[in-house]
Amino acid sequence: MKKYIAEHNINFYIINATKIATEIGLGNRINTIMQSAFFKITQVIPFDLAVKEMKDFIVKSFSRKGEEIVNMNHAAVDKGAAHIHKVEVPRDWAELVEEKQQKAEDNGKSEFIKSVVDPINALKGDSLPVSAFKGREDGTFPQGTTEFEKRGIAVSVPRWIHENCIQCNQCAYVCPHSCIRPFLLTDQEKKAAPEGTETIKGKGAIKEFHFRIQVSPLDCTGCGNCVEICPSKEKSLVLEPLGTQEQEHQRWQYMHKEVGYKQNVVDIKKTVKNSQFAQPLFEFSGACGGCGETPYVKLITQLFGDRMMIANATGCSSIYGGSAPSTPYTVNEKGHGPTWANSLFEDNAEYGYGMALGVNAMRDRIQNRMEKAMENGADEKVKEAFTNWIQLKNNGDETRKASDKVMEALKNVDAPWAKEIKDLKDYLVKKSVWMLGGDGWAYDIGFGGLDHVLASGEDVNALVMDTEVYSNTGGQASKATPVGAVAKFAASGMKTRKKDLGRMIMTYGYVYVAQVAMGASQNQLLKAMREAEEYPGPSLVIAYSPCINHGLKKGMAKMNEEQKLAVEAGYWQLYRYNPLLEKEGKNPFQLDSKEPDWDKFDDFIASEIRYSSLTKSFPQEADRLFKIAKEDAIWRYNAYKRMTDTPQ
Amino acid sequence: MKKYIAEHNINFYIINATKIATEIGLGNRINTIMQSAFFKITQVIPFDLAVKEMKDFIVKSFSRKGEEIVNMNHAAVDKGAAHIHKVEVPRDWAELVEEKQQKAEDNGKSEFIKSVVDPINALKGDSLPVSAFKGREDGTFPQGTTEFEKRGIAVSVPRWIHENCIQCNQCAYVCPHSCIRPFLLTDQEKKAAPEGTETIKGKGAIKEFHFRIQVSPLDCTGCGNCVEICPSKEKSLVLEPLGTQEQEHQRWQYMHKEVGYKQNVVDIKKTVKNSQFAQPLFEFSGACGGCGETPYVKLITQLFGDRMMIANATGCSSIYGGSAPSTPYTVNEKGHGPTWANSLFEDNAEYGYGMALGVNAMRDRIQNRMEKAMENGADEKVKEAFTNWIQLKNNGDETRKASDKVMEALKNVDAPWAKEIKDLKDYLVKKSVWMLGGDGWAYDIGFGGLDHVLASGEDVNALVMDTEVYSNTGGQASKATPVGAVAKFAASGMKTRKKDLGRMIMTYGYVYVAQVAMGASQNQLLKAMREAEEYPGPSLVIAYSPCINHGLKKGMAKMNEEQKLAVEAGYWQLYRYNPLLEKEGKNPFQLDSKEPDWDKFDDFIASEIRYSSLTKSFPQEADRLFKIAKEDAIWRYNAYKRMTDTPQ
Repeated sequence: MKKYIAEHNINFYIINATKIATEIGLGNRINTIMQSAFFKITQVIPFDLAVKEMKDFIVKSFSRKGEEIVNMNHAAVDKGAAHIHKVEVPRDWAELVEEKQQKAEDNGKSEFIKSVVDPINALKGDSLPVSAFKGREDGTFPQGTTEFEKRGIAVSVPRWIHENCIQCNQCAYVCPHSCIRPFLLTDQEKKAAPEGTETIKGKGAIKEFHFRIQVSPLDCTGCGNCVEICPSKEKSLVLEPLGTQEQEHQRWQYMHKEVGYKQNVVDIKKTVKNSQFAQPLFEFSGACGGCGETPYVKLITQLFGDRMMIANATGCSSIYGGSAPSTPYTVNEKGHGPTWANSLFEDNAEYGYGMALGVNAMRDRIQNRMEKAMENGADEKVKEAFTNWIQLKNNGDETRKASDKVMEALKNVDAPWAKEIKDLKDYLVKKSVWMLGGDGWAYDIGFGGLDHVLASGEDVNALVMDTEVYSNTGGQASKATPVGAVAKFAASGMKTRKKDLGRMIMTYGYVYVAQVAMGASQNQLLKAMREAEEYPGPSLVIAYSPCINHGLKKGMAKMNEEQKLAVEAGYWQLYRYNPLLEKEGKNPFQLDSKEPDWDKFDDFIASEIRYSSLTKSFPQEADRLFKIAKEDAIWRYNAYKRMTDTPQ
Repeated sequence: MKKYIAEHNINFYIINATKIATEIGLGNRINTIMQSAFFKITQVIPFDLAVKEMKDFIVKSFSRKGEEIVNMNHAAVDKGAAHIHKVEVPRDWAELVEEKQQKAEDNGKSEFIKSVVDPINALKGDSLPVSAFKGREDGTFPQGTTEFEKRGIAVSVPRWIHENCIQCNQCAYVCPHSCIRPFLLTDQEKKAAPEGTETIKGKGAIKEFHFRIQVSPLDCTGCGNCVEICPSKEKSLVLEPLGTQEQEHQRWQYMHKEVGYKQNVVDIKKTVKNSQFAQPLFEFSGACGGCGETPYVKLITQLFGDRMMIANATGCSSIYGGSAPSTPYTVNEKGHGPTWANSLFEDNAEYGYGMALGVNAMRDRIQNRMEKAMENGADEKVKEAFTNWIQLKNNGDETRKASDKVMEALKNVDAPWAKEIKDLKDYLVKKSVWMLGGDGWAYDIGFGGLDHVLASGEDVNALVMDTEVYSNTGGQASKATPVGAVAKFAASGMKTRKKDLGRMIMTYGYVYVAQVAMGASQNQLLKAMREAEEYPGPSLVIAYSPCINHGLKKGMAKMNEEQKLAVEAGYWQLYRYNPLLEKEGKNPFQLDSKEPDWDKFDDFIASEIRYSSLTKSFPQEADRLFKIAKEDAIWRYNAYKRMTDTPQ
């Protein structure tokens, strides 16, 4: 690049836009600064005119969001032009000799990464020959390609301060990009670690290990959620400029590849802390920094990922879930990980249902072959393995072991039935089928199908990441959008009450339903996910998911705090409806969040631009709608209260 | 036809299959008898072989419905062959001279009926030239064409016994084909009536009139519901062979055309009795005799028909609602009647929503023009009419008068705005927008759209005729099919609980929702329809609709009695959820049916072949499922009970 610049007499400018944006209060929003710099340098139109147009447009776009935001953006225009720095290009750059760089890491890359992923990521995808896709004729892409992107997009990344850490693992739990993880090291592993690797002694069940929180600086987006959630007296995490943390990359590679995940040391499904010792099988996605959706996805891959099948509705989750060549769903050391696919917006539940039915057919066939083999005199060891498998067939936790036992028993058996079962080995393990999507899918476009599939009674799980708006397409109102929220097609505030998807589905009585919000209760979320997956029938989990479309005034770094406020204020409720409890004569419905503090409702409304902007644009309508919004929230809470008070 | 038979030496046979079917217990099912007769006469295969094949097939088809049904059908095979009578064709038939018959009634037929409808009904549609459809380029068909079919398909039709009649009008209320109606005659009209026309003196509000129940024998299907529902001490209706009642046709024509409908004498929306003095604007459809759906459709056309717009989902109701050239939706003497159209199965709610939005735009335009005209000095009479219209614009009952007043005031006004309003005169009257369909539409295929449209808050009405099965396509299971019912795709009994559509939609809180069953409460039905239509927002009425697919052992003539049993047994509940009550601080939910007599539940199950056949085919599964069915019904009832006991 240096050579190219010098050879072509290219003018080379730099600007510290990030620093300016931070100083004038725009956080990480550098676009206006860069735009102004562009017009200043290029002079494609007279710069005075450009400034006038940019400033007028800022007034038009942002005046309803408040004068402060207008002023900040006007400052961005002025500073963008003022702080350009021209870099003088040394003549001898033209004399540089190009050499092919072979990084040490390249060796860890598969042929597919080198021949397909890297070229596409380098914007050279168009030049790929068809032959590069040999072996991919079925349309599948290998998992875990995001691991090799190492985008390094964060301005600042967290640094672990080991002496303050209380080993709660909350930083890892809330991280939207799986870039910060706890590792457990043996003495030997500690010894072999890169120099200067700090660890602390594990507490409780992990006391035999050295504990370390490890950040992957080149995968981090710098959203800051880990720092904000950290509950230690003195913060155990602090954001530092990326440039100062590059040495952590080597440590990350050591932890991830050499130390690995000791997920059998603790029961990973038992506590929030334990869950984070499991390897996330969803990592480094292209979701926005501070995304409210991805922490949920990450968690389910930690709990069930090695036997998951995911049908993903179109929307943010399908884009960050798999935009070629980027596949954040990955595999563990055994090569097991989620199977993932996206069909359409409107048929995702049906798509997942089809996966479940297909798997059922295969597993029924396995059972049938086993039963016939046992009738026809398979040996005792095989019989025992088969009997064990048939008994535990639908037990998610036990199925992996039972399947290994079957494969072990069949190792030296060559009968046709044994061969057939071995050919079907991918279906020995009980699958955990999930249908993922946002509220646009579940409340609107895919609702008819979701309802149909949940009604079927089939053992499938739906996770709805409720951002209360069509996030991916730019924030259009959905039936999940509450009264008063400003959204596209609802510029003067949404007029209708938010649909109560959970309560609708609870009318079936045989569907497990839960509403969760990670920031409000990490424990309740873990319980709900576990119960949903274990429930031998359909399950629906509706997860509150803050989104950049909400305009959190406190910033996305505090999205967990915002969720907490949402629940405390009665804006969102936590509950679980478990039909199994009804069979025990108990109330299947349990409201997990406390009686709201209704005085906080207005604080919540005021804390997000999607609401507060209405006060600027339509002040009277805002007053009217916010009053209704609160009444609606109380109305909804009362409905749950009745379900608590009058058992089913 | 006589000439053709004689000229072509055609063998001419007759058989009184109806008599045979009645004698052997098959009711009006003559198909097996006719099939046997066919094989006997044609000898297309050796008759012995035909008998064997027919009898084997009967065993295969009906054995799960019981031995009795098998035996009856075997008897039908034997009798069909035995009772053929050959008619000797007189030679002189060949000498007959054809003459064009011009019935007196032809004069009442429009050009469209004569040139399009009659040829199609005579199976000569293929020979119609394109020019026959001139003026129909927009795809519309004139209403009320079924009036000219006069199919005469009933074996027996009701005869009115005036001296027994108590003037309750229930016969008319329950008639699925609008073939029996009460008329009010002035002295003069009585005098001018065809000779021998019996009437009785009107009681109460109608005491100034002569009262008569009039049957249209050529439109009647002979289903017998009128006779069964008749509550007078001695029945006021008795079924007589069609041939004996043909003189009633002339009387019908006199009543319908000359006497007409005196619907202003009483408040037709007030009582069941009153409602039947209104002209049904849905008549003589091609629905099955004893259809459980059509009485509901007829009733709403009596209450709101002259200003209705109907979006009809695909299904039975779209087939009997409009199969070219048959249009049962008709107009009153002023030419006002329902606008009707059918789009698809999956988009009917959206289709109706579009109608509503279109009408809204037109009416907003009218109001805008009126307001501008008033600002710019329209005269006092016009101003008064406009002010009145704007005030009553959305009042269904008053809108017709207010609109007439506007048209009257504008009669001699030629200003451009007056012309524009006059051009929009069809939109002056508030429309009553209805979305009609079955459970296949509302619970399954169109549910996503129905939910979306009801959630919109728009003033539309949905009528779901719940037959608990896809009726039109032959009885496939839907999510409305309860546990244990045998249906296609549920041959061993439905396994999942019936979806509670009403309770799902009640979670919105701003949708009027009712469940009705004509046979269980005629009054509650009338109230629900009235409230649904008047409610200034979305409404959903779910109507229990017996269907030939249910296999009522007591016959479709007693479908009202069956509905009563369904409600008494707790199989179906009656309720109304009116959000307006909540605004008054009352419980919006009202359970209209009494505490069920659960002992009757098994009686109900035993009374329909869709259930009882399961006992034949899978006796153990039947026991298991019927137990669950009852538990489900109790579970569902308890949910309603809780809503009654713990006000919203």
